[in-house]
Amino acid sequence: MTATNGSVIPASHRDLLEAPLIAHLATTRPQGEPQSTPVWFDWDGAHLLIATGPESQKFRNTQRDPRLALSIIDPANPARYLEVRGRVIAVDPDPNGTRLRTIIRRYTGADELPGLNEARIILVIEPERTSSMG
Amino acid sequence: MTATNGSVIPASHRDLLEAPLIAHLATTRPQGEPQSTPVWFDWDGAHLLIATGPESQKFRNTQRDPRLALSIIDPANPARYLEVRGRVIAVDPDPNGTRLRTIIRRYTGADELPGLNEARIILVIEPERTSSMG
Repeated sequence: MTATNGSVIPASHRDLLEAPLIAHLATTRPQGEPQSTPVWFDWDGAHLLIATGPESQKFRNTQRDPRLALSIIDPANPARYLEVRGRVIAVDPDPNGTRLRTIIRRYTGADELPGLNEARIILVIEPERTSSMG
Repeated sequence: MTATNGSVIPASHRDLLEAPLIAHLATTRPQGEPQSTPVWFDWDGAHLLIATGPESQKFRNTQRDPRLALSIIDPANPARYLEVRGRVIAVDPDPNGTRLRTIIRRYTGADELPGLNEARIILVIEPERTSSMG
């Protein structure tokens, strides 16, 4: 196991996890080919948290192979970016939508998002490696 | 072989290929785990073109497995995005940097980018499937 305290994230690029930016999530599809999906996420200082539906392709991909990568660019300087490689270490239920609302609030300032009210699960992602630029 | 005329790209999202936006490129690393890398690209109406160094990890990944995915969001509406899945069908030399300068011009308006003058190769990517939202 690697550290679970977020220490693999370079201090120089931690701000990209703390801001409500879009991450692009790379997972592996059934035939072994890559998929890239823009996602919202939360960061608790140790794990990235992504809310998704249990039928989503990205979730099904990670059930087959939990390894993934996310890249996030600094909108103020697109040459500056962070890539996090890691894996899904848990899938948490979110029956009351508590975590989903936390993520919606992080991105929109509001507690709800019209049209986004189906049941969600939370992918808990442990960072293992990073690369960064800028 | 699939069509080489860009017809797999939905007309509703073609603008995301025609604008100088950052694409996030998903490839597969040596141990089979995903990698996600922000990249500049050019679009000739049929292929995405990415300039990279011959030693780059993303190039080496595609030499092993040419399948890849790219996702691009609309900066004016991040819920709107295009994912292109396809493969590298050719690796073109660019000894005089002609294609590299075209890409630099597309993104910066200038013909050169300080620090970006090493030899480059061009990954020619054929789209095969897409997904989109918004």
